[in-house]
Amino acid sequence: MRDFSSNLSALAINTATLGHNVEGHGAGWPPERVVDACAQRGIGGIVYWRREIGSRSVPLGERTRAGGLRVDGLCRTPFLVGPLALPTRQAIMDDFYASIDMAAGLGAPVLTVVVGGVVPGTRGLSESLGLVADLMAVAAPRAAASGVKLALEPLHPVYAGDRSCLVSVRDAVALCNAIAHPCVGIAIDVYHVWWDSSLKEELKRAGPERILGYHLCDWLATTRDILLDRGMMGDGVADLKSIRATVEGAGYTGPCEIEIFSAADWWTRDPDDVLDTCVARFQRVC
Amino acid sequence: MRDFSSNLSALAINTATLGHNVEGHGAGWPPERVVDACAQRGIGGIVYWRREIGSRSVPLGERTRAGGLRVDGLCRTPFLVGPLALPTRQAIMDDFYASIDMAAGLGAPVLTVVVGGVVPGTRGLSESLGLVADLMAVAAPRAAASGVKLALEPLHPVYAGDRSCLVSVRDAVALCNAIAHPCVGIAIDVYHVWWDSSLKEELKRAGPERILGYHLCDWLATTRDILLDRGMMGDGVADLKSIRATVEGAGYTGPCEIEIFSAADWWTRDPDDVLDTCVARFQRVC
Repeated sequence: MRDFSSNLSALAINTATLGHNVEGHGAGWPPERVVDACAQRGIGGIVYWRREIGSRSVPLGERTRAGGLRVDGLCRTPFLVGPLALPTRQAIMDDFYASIDMAAGLGAPVLTVVVGGVVPGTRGLSESLGLVADLMAVAAPRAAASGVKLALEPLHPVYAGDRSCLVSVRDAVALCNAIAHPCVGIAIDVYHVWWDSSLKEELKRAGPERILGYHLCDWLATTRDILLDRGMMGDGVADLKSIRATVEGAGYTGPCEIEIFSAADWWTRDPDDVLDTCVARFQRVC
Repeated sequence: MRDFSSNLSALAINTATLGHNVEGHGAGWPPERVVDACAQRGIGGIVYWRREIGSRSVPLGERTRAGGLRVDGLCRTPFLVGPLALPTRQAIMDDFYASIDMAAGLGAPVLTVVVGGVVPGTRGLSESLGLVADLMAVAAPRAAASGVKLALEPLHPVYAGDRSCLVSVRDAVALCNAIAHPCVGIAIDVYHVWWDSSLKEELKRAGPERILGYHLCDWLATTRDILLDRGMMGDGVADLKSIRATVEGAGYTGPCEIEIFSAADWWTRDPDDVLDTCVARFQRVC
């Protein structure tokens, strides 16, 4: 297990931690300011959200690297299925391709895929997952040609209805096997998997080359809002060191990305304080 | 798979479906009225909550059977661990025993166990589950002597922090194995397990004698309140027929218990209409 107590190169900040994923939240720092604030602290990488990039993917990627940081990823594809997906397959795929192009422009090696919920009119998850497999198989060659890997992120089962019919690492590995493309893998987020006692065996089944990301936050024992009340590492009940040991034991050596959605708490604070706290907690409790 | 289209004997109504589990909700019918309304419709059984029983367990059990219904169960033990548990082990066990005595008084064959969340000051689920195993092992002989089985109910992983460190059938089977007492088994609730692709193999691992209950409701694609916004069967995205086929395929032949927490919808309706809808949906979509 890597020692992070005096080395922040593996640490990446997902800008959602500063509220950049949701309109009207956070301090609204431009990406350049986030880059410089991260670089000053020795943070190794950054993960952006599409809404803050606009048409500036290439210059922002260059600016990030010039500032001393890696671009570790981009959030995210559109929902591919479910009640919140765009209305037509064509519109979904067009936006899927646009997200791949943006990741390529940024020089981001990984694009996170949040697959969307249960297809309206169907029941259970399998039919929706089958459609996800189809769309992923179509997009995968485009991603490969762009040098971008697609990281299927299983979300917490609480989101199964509307946001992600992919809710377990088990199902994510099965989906990877069904798609069977070398640029498709999975992202592991402690918020979504911390409760799962099968994590070790499922990650072993996945294999190290398929683990494309590891996301950090914490699960607050009393969660007030199921979407936007994630905890800072150390403030909740997830066993962060044990989960990282499991992920690294499965062969993962990539960045550890802090991604905290917290409308009522961390997003209301000074971003400098948030970043300082991220660094301190990363060194101590992750 | 049993045919319920013209036979309601397997159907049980959990009185939470009428709001009887939470103070200030529902129409407040006395248990006798619920019994008669269920009997008129041919419903086979009833599952009570402790708060509506008080000291009348023996006469209410007799009244239920005299009215033509089975008492199929009692909800529930106190939380055994976690932030919402009583403050001392003695207080928890006293209340645990009181719930066993009430189930015995009612003549209920099964007492549902909701185990409680993560022990404050600990991380992850395993330490809390270990403590649950200890307390269950102490209580099991008392339950056995009273003719009551203890049904560990894995709740949805969204409740892991504060209400149930037991969040998967997989962990419930492991817990049964650790306790290793013939009166300890599990209850399967579609709300909590509908997303779980490992259900079939885990129920096979459990064995038929350990499946002590099957609970019905539905998962609404858009869930507005994570505790009190369960759906009526057919209104959500759970594949109810498939789940029942899995549960019965694992050997379960007992009652199917409708348990719908629905503060903003079904609890505001006329209980006669709720019961009529339960019967119609049970026959058609479960």
